[in-house]
Amino acid sequence: MEAGKVKTKAVLSLSGGMDSTGLLVHLLEKGCEVHGISFDYGQKHKLELTRLTANLEYLESKGIHVPHKVVDVSVLGDLFRSALTTKGWDVPEGHYEQDNMKQTVVPNRNAIFSSIAYGYALSIANENQAEVSLCLGVHSGDHAIYPDCRPEFVQKMDDVCRIANYDAVEIFSPYLNNTKIDILTDGLKMGLDYSQTWTCYNGRDKACGKCGACQERLEAFALNNVTDPIEYE
Amino acid sequence: MEAGKVKTKAVLSLSGGMDSTGLLVHLLEKGCEVHGISFDYGQKHKLELTRLTANLEYLESKGIHVPHKVVDVSVLGDLFRSALTTKGWDVPEGHYEQDNMKQTVVPNRNAIFSSIAYGYALSIANENQAEVSLCLGVHSGDHAIYPDCRPEFVQKMDDVCRIANYDAVEIFSPYLNNTKIDILTDGLKMGLDYSQTWTCYNGRDKACGKCGACQERLEAFALNNVTDPIEYE
Repeated sequence: MEAGKVKTKAVLSLSGGMDSTGLLVHLLEKGCEVHGISFDYGQKHKLELTRLTANLEYLESKGIHVPHKVVDVSVLGDLFRSALTTKGWDVPEGHYEQDNMKQTVVPNRNAIFSSIAYGYALSIANENQAEVSLCLGVHSGDHAIYPDCRPEFVQKMDDVCRIANYDAVEIFSPYLNNTKIDILTDGLKMGLDYSQTWTCYNGRDKACGKCGACQERLEAFALNNVTDPIEYE
Repeated sequence: MEAGKVKTKAVLSLSGGMDSTGLLVHLLEKGCEVHGISFDYGQKHKLELTRLTANLEYLESKGIHVPHKVVDVSVLGDLFRSALTTKGWDVPEGHYEQDNMKQTVVPNRNAIFSSIAYGYALSIANENQAEVSLCLGVHSGDHAIYPDCRPEFVQKMDDVCRIANYDAVEIFSPYLNNTKIDILTDGLKMGLDYSQTWTCYNGRDKACGKCGACQERLEAFALNNVTDPIEYE
């Protein structure tokens, strides 16, 4: 794992939220050829993915092409128990570091997503005989509740994927030790339109403003002294 | 990772080949409640899965119920380049430890499969408030060509999944340092019907007898002084 460097070709795990979209703009600014990969894992709503498509279409209209694959692993929704996937289990409200937010953990999610994205990066590396970075938009705000967003996870995931294959791909996660506030500061500087990002765990017309994800987003905007352009209930 | 012990509940990654089917019988003999999980990953043929279904139906007829999920990740077939998934790329012939067999490596396959199976095991553990083993039928014959079947891979995969989650699942892979010959010896003792297992990389009516997988299977039968009950071209 190399925190400071990114290869010319990059595979980016894109949720459609503000962190991975921020990282996308960061990579494009660095001149990377970015290949996006997203996951339909049976999450209760797909608003993040809808907004992501809008963002990618906007980039396309500006002449910036970001090839994008959506991997349908929605069958996992039947296997996994989590407030984000299991019907009848409501998303909890509260601060994003509160203990009840653990209900939103999806078993082994980031190990699954990053291993698939890593395999995709390996294929691109192999096909082009080029070095490829696997880029993850994880940050320190996720560390309290999501063990699979902590630096030791990213490091060990990198270790296991390296020894599992003949070719190596490097994980690049520049915000691993930064906060959501820092990613937003960066994104705002780069002119990212945050009206086309979705963060709320609920999938209603407007963001709820009460779940852990909304609270963290609102805090990041407040600490940047900027008004969040999306609508809240 | 605990090589010697298995919990009462077990999730088993089942390909339908002779190794994982052998491990299934091994686990049932030990009195485990086994939950099978298989993957459709865009492999060129599904004969292994068809044979597996026949084997599970046979067990059912004997009153042994093995719940079984097939996870459709066939979209990965489009992402990954390998002689086992890419159309127009023929499966190589030769000994299973020969260098050209590296064409049959599917990028990061076992990291992907085991991380999904691990997530499934976590969900069963959480739902039942019970300890669960994740069982993998890897063995030493795979070590030469498949880096993701080596002991260090299994160890590191176990490490990463443990720190990625609040609950822990133990990986159980009793044949990790044994050969295919040993697994077959065990399976024959337990009366496993090998006519309902498929090993050949090609998906024709009869096994080819020439690919690395067939050669290893035939060698294992020969060294057990038993005739393989399936038909060869």
